[in-house]
Formats: sequence, C-alpha cells, structure tokens
Amino acid sequence: MAIEKPLKGVAVIGQSGGPTCVINQSVVGAVTELRKSRHVTGIYGARHGVAGMLKQDFINLAKEDLKTLRAVAETPSAALGSVRKKPTPDECRQVFENFRRHNVRYFFYIGGNDTAETAHIVNEMAKREAYDLRAFHIPKTIDNDLLVTDHCPGFGSAAKFVAQAFMGDDLDNRSLNGIKINIVMGRHAGFLTAASVLGRTRKDDGPHLVYVPERPFDMDKFIADVDAVYTKLGRCLVAVSEGVADEKGESILHKFAKSDEVDAHGNIQLSGTGALGDLLASFVKKGLGSTHPSLRVRADTFGYLQRCFPGVVSKVDQKEAFEAGRMAVKYALGGDPDGSVAIERAKGAKYAVSYFRTPLSSVAKETTHLSDAFINAAGNDITKAFVKYALPLVGDLPKTVLLKGYKVAKKG
Amino acid sequence: MAIEKPLKGVAVIGQSGGPTCVINQSVVGAVTELRKSRHVTGIYGARHGVAGMLKQDFINLAKEDLKTLRAVAETPSAALGSVRKKPTPDECRQVFENFRRHNVRYFFYIGGNDTAETAHIVNEMAKREAYDLRAFHIPKTIDNDLLVTDHCPGFGSAAKFVAQAFMGDDLDNRSLNGIKINIVMGRHAGFLTAASVLGRTRKDDGPHLVYVPERPFDMDKFIADVDAVYTKLGRCLVAVSEGVADEKGESILHKFAKSDEVDAHGNIQLSGTGALGDLLASFVKKGLGSTHPSLRVRADTFGYLQRCFPGVVSKVDQKEAFEAGRMAVKYALGGDPDGSVAIERAKGAKYAVSYFRTPLSSVAKETTHLSDAFINAAGNDITKAFVKYALPLVGDLPKTVLLKGYKVAKKG
Repeated sequence: MAIEKPLKGVAVIGQSGGPTCVINQSVVGAVTELRKSRHVTGIYGARHGVAGMLKQDFINLAKEDLKTLRAVAETPSAALGSVRKKPTPDECRQVFENFRRHNVRYFFYIGGNDTAETAHIVNEMAKREAYDLRAFHIPKTIDNDLLVTDHCPGFGSAAKFVAQAFMGDDLDNRSLNGIKINIVMGRHAGFLTAASVLGRTRKDDGPHLVYVPERPFDMDKFIADVDAVYTKLGRCLVAVSEGVADEKGESILHKFAKSDEVDAHGNIQLSGTGALGDLLASFVKKGLGSTHPSLRVRADTFGYLQRCFPGVVSKVDQKEAFEAGRMAVKYALGGDPDGSVAIERAKGAKYAVSYFRTPLSSVAKETTHLSDAFINAAGNDITKAFVKYALPLVGDLPKTVLLKGYKVAKKG
Repeated sequence: MAIEKPLKGVAVIGQSGGPTCVINQSVVGAVTELRKSRHVTGIYGARHGVAGMLKQDFINLAKEDLKTLRAVAETPSAALGSVRKKPTPDECRQVFENFRRHNVRYFFYIGGNDTAETAHIVNEMAKREAYDLRAFHIPKTIDNDLLVTDHCPGFGSAAKFVAQAFMGDDLDNRSLNGIKINIVMGRHAGFLTAASVLGRTRKDDGPHLVYVPERPFDMDKFIADVDAVYTKLGRCLVAVSEGVADEKGESILHKFAKSDEVDAHGNIQLSGTGALGDLLASFVKKGLGSTHPSLRVRADTFGYLQRCFPGVVSKVDQKEAFEAGRMAVKYALGGDPDGSVAIERAKGAKYAVSYFRTPLSSVAKETTHLSDAFINAAGNDITKAFVKYALPLVGDLPKTVLLKGYKVAKKG
C-alpha cells in the first residue's frame, strides 16, 4: 500500500446502527478535516446510511455553517439518520454505481462491525472495478465490542448513563429496600452492564450482583445469590445484561418462555422489552417469597434511554469520537486506501490515547467480549480491573453522600 | 389557633413514599432552621418514616456536620430511608407513645397526601390526649398531585428527567424511525407524562401523542392516532401514563389482560413493569402491520430512573424543596399547631413563589389532576398552557440542533 497522491473527488459520510450521544462528533470531526483539503470536491452526508446511498439521498455537508456543525456535534443521536441494514451484494453494486455517478472517492461509514463489513464489501467491489476509492470505517458502538481498538466511541457516554442510573437506583433501593433488578443493553458483550459498578464508592453500594453474557446464567444460582445478599443487607440491587444465556447459549428469556412455569401463549409479552426483567422478578418472588414474606421485588429495563440521553455525556468520549472521525479523514487523504480507526491506550498511570489504522477486515466480522480479568470468579460481579479500564472513559460521576447516622438510644 | 410560645422539646423528621432527587433538601432545610431555635432540645431523624417511629429507630441529626448535611441535600433519594406504610390506628398510638417517651414536640413528615394523613392522625391523637404537638407535612411527590399547592417539590426534577429522556428518544426516533411508545410514571395524575413535551422546540419534535389518565383511553382511537402521525411523518413517538384507563376507569393493562387477545395465563408478564408498553406495542403492530409492512415498533418503560437520577435535577426544585422544609419549621416554631406547606406562584411574567400554611386536612385525602386547560381537545396531546406552567419548575434543558440538510441533486 504505497502512499499515493490524494484523489480528487467527493466524500460521503454515513451513520449506521444504534445511535449514540457522540456519533455526531465523528461526523463533525470528519467534516472539519475534509474541509481543509483542496482535493475534496464535495462533502456529502448520506441520509440513513446505506439507505441514502442506494437512493442518492445525499445532503451537502460542505454548506453547513460551523455554528450548526458544532452544535450538532453536541447533539445526541445520528444527525444524518441511521439504518439497520446490511446491504446485499446487489445493493452494494447500486451503492458503488451511485458513488461513481457522483465521483465519490472517499467513503466514511460510522458504526459497529456490520458497518465495517459494508464498507469492506463496497471497497472490494471498487477494487475489482479498478475504481479508486478510499473506504474507512469510523468506530461507534455503546456495546464496546469491536476488535483491535482499546475501546469504542459511544461506550463512555452510555456507560456514564448506566453508572449514574445505578447510583440513583441504589440510593432508591437503600431508601425503600427490597430487591431490584435492572436490565441493561448488551446482547453478546457485557461491557455496558459492567459499567453499572462504576459509581460504587461505599462497601455496601449496589449493584451487589452483576450478570453478563460472558458467563452462563443459571436461574437457581441467581436466586441463591440474591437470597444471600438480601439476607445480609436487607436489600439487593442486580444488574443483568439483556443477552444473558445458559451454558448452551440459549437466551434465558427464550428458555423459560418455553417452560411450564411461564405460559408460552404470553409470547406477546415475552418478546417485549420488559419481559426479561419481569421474568427474573417473578422467579425471585417465587423462589424467596416463602423465606422472606412480603418481599418487594421490582424490575426495570433501561432500554433506549441508555444511548441518547442528552446532558449525560462523557467529555472524553466526545473528544475521542471527534478525533476518530478526523483521523479517518487523515488516513484517507494521506493515501491509505482503506481501514478502520482504532484507539490505543498509553501505558502508565495517566489516561492518554493515540489512534492507528487497522484493516477493515480486522474489525468487520467478529466482536470482542469482557475479558476474564473483568469478571469475578463466581461470575456474578465485576472486578476492579474493569473499573480501572472503564472509569477514564466515563469521567467524573456525581458525588453522593449518606448521613453519618448517629443512633439515638431507645427509651422506656 | 392562637399564636403560642414555642414548645420546648425534640423534633422528629421523617420521609415517606417514593423518594425524589430533592427530598433530602427538605430534611436539610428543616434541620437548618431547627438548629437556630433554643426551644428545640433534639433533632431526630426517623429511619424509614413511620417504621422507625414505631421502633424508636431514630438518628441524631443535630450531630451531623454541616458539610455532610449540605452534600446529603444534593444527594437523590431519602437519606433517612423511606417507607410505604399507612399506619393503623393502633400503630399511630404507638408512634404517639414513642413521641411522648422522647418528649417529641415537633413532627415533620415529608411525603405525599398519605403522608399528610398520617401526620394528621397522629396529631389528632395528641390533641385528644392534650399532648402539645406541632405536626407538619412537607410536600413531596413527583406526581405533582397534591391539593392546594401550585406544584410539589420533587416534580420539577422528575419532569426534567422525563423531558430530557424524550428529547433524546425523539432524536433516536428521527434517526431510526418507526413507532416508539414510552410509559411514564403516574397512576392517576398525568403531570409527569405531560412533562414529556417540555423539550419540544421544532414543529415535528416528539412526543407526537400524549395519553394521560385524565382522559379515557380508547385502543382503536390510539391506533388510529398513531397511524395518522406515522403516515405523515414516517415516525411517531408516544408518551403514555402508566395509569391510563378506559371510560369506566378500568386500567388498560387489566382490561386487555383479560381479553382473548392476550392470554391471561401470561399474568406474570402482564403484571410486570414492561407490560403496558409491550401490550400497546403489540396492538400497534397488529393494527398497522398490514398497512405499513416491516413496521418498527418499540416500547420502553422509564420506571424508577425517573425519580432518583443523580445529575439531572432542577435547581428551582432543589431550592423550593429546601424552603418547604425550612418553612414548615418556621410555622411550627412560630406557634402554628399543624399544617402543610403550600407554594403560591406570583402573578406576572417572572417566575416567583411564596409559601403559606394550609391545614393538614386540606391535602390529606384527595389528590389533584391535570386541568382541562393542559390537555388538548382530542385528548392526545398537551397544551402550551402546561408548558408555561411547568417549564419554570424544570429550568434549562439541553439544546439540540439538527443539520440544515441542503439536498444534493440526484444524477444519472
């Protein structure tokens, strides 16, 4: 891959997959850098990612004023519109033809590993047609599950939301006690669920139990775990990944939906968003109701609030998402034909990062998971090693303080 | 009720009902004022409200240092612990006996209308026994449903959370389109659900439909409403109070749980937290799936996140909650025998409030609802009059900006 002279042509930027609080930073980072180059003859945004590329639904990002761009960067969710679509080979051809029509020579696609794969396929097609194209993937995912990179833009802000939500809910649980189960996003990787522990500062702070997809979920073990915490503390706060599965990889929701214990006819509910939390709450009630009469068990499913909540955002995440967009453009204009932007963390006590290019194929297919060092031996909690890894990505969390609570002697 | 000389004795403060982000402000406001008086011989906090009063589980708030108190005021949830308990007459007697044992002469109970009633009952008992007691209710409820007062401490911060959540989710919905239904707390009063509209600034900002318990909910009308918005905008964001009910007052969840359309055996799910959202989503899918193929319908239930989320708090709400605690003490030490603190809003363009005492009985039994002026004629949206009422209680909301979106002409 020799360094070539920059191509003269149009740049297209698209956003794909679930939006985040900082995905627009990457757009604006890319646009900012593209504007500096005299080789870039146009900067187009594809509306709803590949859907817009298929329909030539482009907007002119070169015409957007700086004030708007700066404010858009601070605005959650995908300003260009997003899409959940893996194009077919035929559609990739259509995208490529539209690129040719507009003399698109730079293609930046912001998203997760599926997004990287789309960029990869379009790029392979261009190569076969001997059409010079620079195709770059800009990483984005609250799941934090991309290979190669230390972490993914989007994760830090979602992790901050989850951490703060658990801080508040732990105080809530202290106040009214009982057992509380919160379902956190993450079908295959437990990073976001693990972020539930980032706000713990006191010995008895919750979550007291954390279940991630990286460990098989056993319902009896779960109920016994909850019982042990509740018996000790009189309360229990639990974080559960939406994707928890048994040792065979079957999702817990699916598994128990089929059993006699929950009627399968209720599948309208079972496929719903609150279903896993409600299922776990009902099993806890059933399992512990006799030993702990009048037990209060509640479940919440955080849902979409986790990814686009305005005002709860990590500054580090914002900055890195912007840089990821900017770096992709630098690589492309510097002559690199394709790739994805990855983040490397500097060794040493102070948090610092640098960026490097990694091949599209290296991030396109597989995803990563929480390392063993981040999960405790019992498989029901998160280690300090994870806190050390994740806290710099999240930044400051609100401080909460409890009363000292000097006892008054009883009388009479 | 003649103005009397302040009683010499102990003050007890308790917190009751669902916690809020500012309920500790009221405790600290009361403690701050109580500390100024030489008549107050002790300042006790009852752990978990009436449960602590029954067990003499008191902590000495006079011993807490100022730094701790200030930080606790900023901490969400009930620092003393809360309780959901309406004491029986026998238990009220026990509370009263414990008060007598500790020479408690001032009783401040922070909570909703049930809390006011408990204060009222204990106070009536004291009167019958010719025991001099000052019993005050300090208002707190995210439901904002107390009588007499213009609004309730706790509402502004919860409303801010709901408004921001909808701002983010509306951007999310713009990005991936489809139909999104969010269930907001509020069994009988729609104030918090109405707060979903407070972040709307653009003509097509969501929520596009809002359903509150003050209007009967009709499933067919609901589906037709959603269809109309979706057909026009290609997306639809909906806010629904958890307590929506039909014209006979039967909750929608309960009503359809019994019908053939949702199997009643699924009642583990149907009674769960996500059940109403999942139910509405399934009806929308069923009702509109044929006219809008591959329709994306999602539901979230905000749950407990709404009431104790650290870092999302209204400054006005914080201040007023503090003042409500302080004013209750002022009334009590000023010789008023009992009452609740109410807020009056000044007439005129600039938001300003004053406080006044209202009898316990005036807030204890009934609750209030959204006025007709706050709901549109069709019963599916919230008016500007509500925004005018509620926005000052919430304060600044994050600004979000969209791209101008200059179209690029198609080619070829």
